Amino acid sequence: MAFGLARRQLRPRVPLRPGEGERDHLTSLEGLAALSLDALSSVAYGPEAIVLALVVAGSSAVSATLPITLVITALLAVLVVSYGQVIAVHPDGGGAYAVAKKDLGRRASLLAAASLVVDYVLTVAVSLAAGADALVSAFPKLAGDNLAVCLLGLAVLTLVNLRGVTESARLLMLPTLLFIVSIVGVIVVGLARPHPAAMVGTPEPLHATEALSVLVLLKAFSSGCSALTGVEAIANAVPTFRSPRVKRAQHTELMLGGLLGVMLIGLAVMIHRDSVVPRGGVTVLAQLTAGAFGTGWAYYATNVVVTVVLGLAANTSFGGLPVLMSLLARDNRLPHLFGLRAERPVYRWGVGVLAVTAGLLLIAVDADTHRLIPLFAIGVFIGFTLSQGGLVRHWRRERPPGWRRRAMINGTGAVLTTIAACVLLGTKFLAGAWIVVVTVPLMMLLFSRIERYYTAVGAELELGRIPGPPARMHSLVIVPLGQVSKVAQHALTAALAMGDEVVAVVVHHDPAKSRALIDAWDRWDPGVRLQVLDSPHRSLVQPVVDYVRVAAADGRQVAVLIPEIEPRSRRYKILQNQRGILLATVLRARTDVVVCMLPHRLDL
Amino acid sequence: MAFGLARRQLRPRVPLRPGEGERDHLTSLEGLAALSLDALSSVAYGPEAIVLALVVAGSSAVSATLPITLVITALLAVLVVSYGQVIAVHPDGGGAYAVAKKDLGRRASLLAAASLVVDYVLTVAVSLAAGADALVSAFPKLAGDNLAVCLLGLAVLTLVNLRGVTESARLLMLPTLLFIVSIVGVIVVGLARPHPAAMVGTPEPLHATEALSVLVLLKAFSSGCSALTGVEAIANAVPTFRSPRVKRAQHTELMLGGLLGVMLIGLAVMIHRDSVVPRGGVTVLAQLTAGAFGTGWAYYATNVVVTVVLGLAANTSFGGLPVLMSLLARDNRLPHLFGLRAERPVYRWGVGVLAVTAGLLLIAVDADTHRLIPLFAIGVFIGFTLSQGGLVRHWRRERPPGWRRRAMINGTGAVLTTIAACVLLGTKFLAGAWIVVVTVPLMMLLFSRIERYYTAVGAELELGRIPGPPARMHSLVIVPLGQVSKVAQHALTAALAMGDEVVAVVVHHDPAKSRALIDAWDRWDPGVRLQVLDSPHRSLVQPVVDYVRVAAADGRQVAVLIPEIEPRSRRYKILQNQRGILLATVLRARTDVVVCMLPHRLDL
Repeated sequence: MAFGLARRQLRPRVPLRPGEGERDHLTSLEGLAALSLDALSSVAYGPEAIVLALVVAGSSAVSATLPITLVITALLAVLVVSYGQVIAVHPDGGGAYAVAKKDLGRRASLLAAASLVVDYVLTVAVSLAAGADALVSAFPKLAGDNLAVCLLGLAVLTLVNLRGVTESARLLMLPTLLFIVSIVGVIVVGLARPHPAAMVGTPEPLHATEALSVLVLLKAFSSGCSALTGVEAIANAVPTFRSPRVKRAQHTELMLGGLLGVMLIGLAVMIHRDSVVPRGGVTVLAQLTAGAFGTGWAYYATNVVVTVVLGLAANTSFGGLPVLMSLLARDNRLPHLFGLRAERPVYRWGVGVLAVTAGLLLIAVDADTHRLIPLFAIGVFIGFTLSQGGLVRHWRRERPPGWRRRAMINGTGAVLTTIAACVLLGTKFLAGAWIVVVTVPLMMLLFSRIERYYTAVGAELELGRIPGPPARMHSLVIVPLGQVSKVAQHALTAALAMGDEVVAVVVHHDPAKSRALIDAWDRWDPGVRLQVLDSPHRSLVQPVVDYVRVAAADGRQVAVLIPEIEPRSRRYKILQNQRGILLATVLRARTDVVVCMLPHRLDL
Repeated sequence: MAFGLARRQLRPRVPLRPGEGERDHLTSLEGLAALSLDALSSVAYGPEAIVLALVVAGSSAVSATLPITLVITALLAVLVVSYGQVIAVHPDGGGAYAVAKKDLGRRASLLAAASLVVDYVLTVAVSLAAGADALVSAFPKLAGDNLAVCLLGLAVLTLVNLRGVTESARLLMLPTLLFIVSIVGVIVVGLARPHPAAMVGTPEPLHATEALSVLVLLKAFSSGCSALTGVEAIANAVPTFRSPRVKRAQHTELMLGGLLGVMLIGLAVMIHRDSVVPRGGVTVLAQLTAGAFGTGWAYYATNVVVTVVLGLAANTSFGGLPVLMSLLARDNRLPHLFGLRAERPVYRWGVGVLAVTAGLLLIAVDADTHRLIPLFAIGVFIGFTLSQGGLVRHWRRERPPGWRRRAMINGTGAVLTTIAACVLLGTKFLAGAWIVVVTVPLMMLLFSRIERYYTAVGAELELGRIPGPPARMHSLVIVPLGQVSKVAQHALTAALAMGDEVVAVVVHHDPAKSRALIDAWDRWDPGVRLQVLDSPHRSLVQPVVDYVRVAAADGRQVAVLIPEIEPRSRRYKILQNQRGILLATVLRARTDVVVCMLPHRLDL
């Protein structure tokens, strides 16, 4: 990967840090545009998830959508207040991982990290799958091609992110605003009509396979909780707000909560009033849209806006995962490599992994949104639970005025989200939730193994202790050469500057060539000894390695200086330097000497 | 590729050079075993090619097989004598490429090189395809799976060659001997019987689509010439013979010619006597085998021996192509990379390319031997023509006693092989020969462009001229560090040995961490200045690159010494050094300073 850098300027996407150009930071409204997409867009699949869960108990059971939505909205209110407190306590952002690390200890933070990684991947997959559903609702000709639509969308996102995007809150303003206007419009216009303006989709046979039990209601509740995914995004991103950061972020969280609550209740009322049941080829949201706007341009426009916003929601993961990975790398829980987030090749690597994993998931479930939702929601709810559990601990430790009330709010949130997570796990275990149950502990194990390794390395390097003074040594620079040329002149200049002693070595199998070289060397007389090395097996590398090993054995600091001819044009690269690269690789693997590369630029 | 080396000992397959352990060199008989497989195995497809070419003029036309074979055998005699002379004139081997370069000039040598490369690829493809035919003849259950058999064989050869094989003449003795015994046995037993012992294969409808014209005879002649491929192998490998090398090689060439001639004539007589025509599912050779031995164990054994020998013939290319490529690399006509034949990664690269190209060819023609034979024969005949044309030039220039007679022999050979090449080209142009017509000039162009590039580089480096003396410069070694640790101590020891001046640099975005580092540094007091670099965009690489550029601007020899932590276990590699590798890559691409890597080994 590293080789992709070459000559292009690195201009990576980096979240702004406090104090760096306050003007670039977000106001509350800009924050809403930039950070609410993920949460708001979940109204495209959350209510539908409730309806689908209820309809197994017959079409009349769908009327339970409204009460369930009210419970979910109550949970939303708890979460919003709760996250308002998270924002105040953790103004540096970081979300569930930061809270868990600070207040709940190592194991909980590993759990938070693993479930967040799972979530980022699933946000991409779910948003794309739901986006494809919305698009197919508008354009029935695409029916059956959902997976293709998803993979195409994923390819576009990947390419855009590989090139590097500058996410601008202002750019996101328009789609967010359009989305809010569309959904609120659907609700207002829809409820103003006495009955639906139009029906879309094909009727599907509905057989009640179960009675309307508590279990069915719990399932519907936990599936519907997928509508709450994304409300944590603002708390993760407090540092990107303009000061007063905490106030603005809390304000944005409240706006988000209010909007999301209104949308969810409004849509649930419509579902209830019109007895909406799933129909073939369209989403529940598309049915409500047609009910409000008919099937004219407004129907198409709304579906397209929903699709675009879901696509942008998928895109947030491409920005978020690298941030999380760099936090983990700084905590020694992922390779330090990922701490180099600002370096484009590393960033590209992350984008690639995210895209491939999401793509495989989409293929595995054939782009079926509702097979992904349980997996998705479990991860999110683990995060919710940990954040709030951590705050309960925080309040109990700090005991500020009113800590009992605050702990009660966070505790209630934690209990409710734990219930939702457990219901999802229990009811959807065989339907895919087992993947999360397997993946999350494996990832925790991986993080923990990596941490252990780095700790052991730190101990071996005696980090934190002051080492002895550096030794003073005599240096020998060995310069492998092939011919007497300007390259040799350049290399010896560098070697003489760096070494107390310099020796040039040359490998030849052909006695005539060796003699010619020695003659040329004597005529040149550069003031450096030339050592001709014999090569019985015509290998170029082995004789040099053997010579270097012997030279390094007697307590000098040995360096091998390898001149590299660098053609100006990239396509000539293969024609040069293979010997040097090979030699450098073997020397680095099999000796402890310093290996130096000296570029000699050509005009070709 | 280069990274595959690591810790394994390089033990490449290298042809022996004169004087290196005479005991390892070949006697005449061993030479026959080692070098005749390619030529002898062509009796498996050569006679069949004649029959197939003739049968378009009806089954009676097949009787022309015998006279055509006699003409081909006469050509074989000319070639054998001719190559005896090549051996005498070019005892260093090298074959058509060496002869053309010496006697015919640059363009002819490029043509020879390109057609030889094409040949090596086609030897693999044709031998495997014919081997599959032989195997299918023995085991009709495999019918239709020829391509799969070929690709499986190719995979085995590739794996064996990737691991590296020690070709031993003695190991090849047994299959070669078995092959000779089998084929001679078929001829002797077959001719001793009054009529065939058994018929195999299914009859195929034969419609004469053409009259028996001169063109048909010419086509049959040129296709049959594919039986002569491989007679050049001995002349290419004179240095591998025990002395007196020339005598022994000539002796081997004569034995090969005699054997091949006997086999071809013997098989042609049988074809003539029994009026053999192509039958479904079996080769002509298999029909003759059944005619001689019946369909008992001897039939199976013979076909298996033929298959094995064809597989071994395919294997000769895996040994031959790298040798040719290293010759071309030494003449600046291929990347110098390929001159490093003794280094395993380079060798593996060649094996891979050969395997992939041959595999694609086999897939393209669906493993049909007779679609490959024209392509194959064209390349071989270009080589024959160039070798002999070169010798004619040689005789005319040197004029030793009897030069006219010698030139006449070589000239006749050249004319005959030219005719065969032209007939093949003309009659098979649309059937695939155009591929050769396109590929060969493209390869010549490539070789020539590479040669031109290296010439230009040589001029820029002023090769052959004595450069000025190396300059005496002051050196500055810059050491990027992250922490005060044993690694820092190690790196500064090396830097102080190598630099007149040393400065440690550290990139930090976190002021608290910077301060802690400066404190630790002051307590350590290693006698080296510490420079803290600011990083507005959290990039680690850019600040160092900027600092190095400024430092390099004032006429000092600047080196950057990057310490690398080397874990003992390979699987920890990803956890270390990514920063160092990234920094080294960017520095090498964007600055002209010396980049030094210092390994710091861990016990982990």
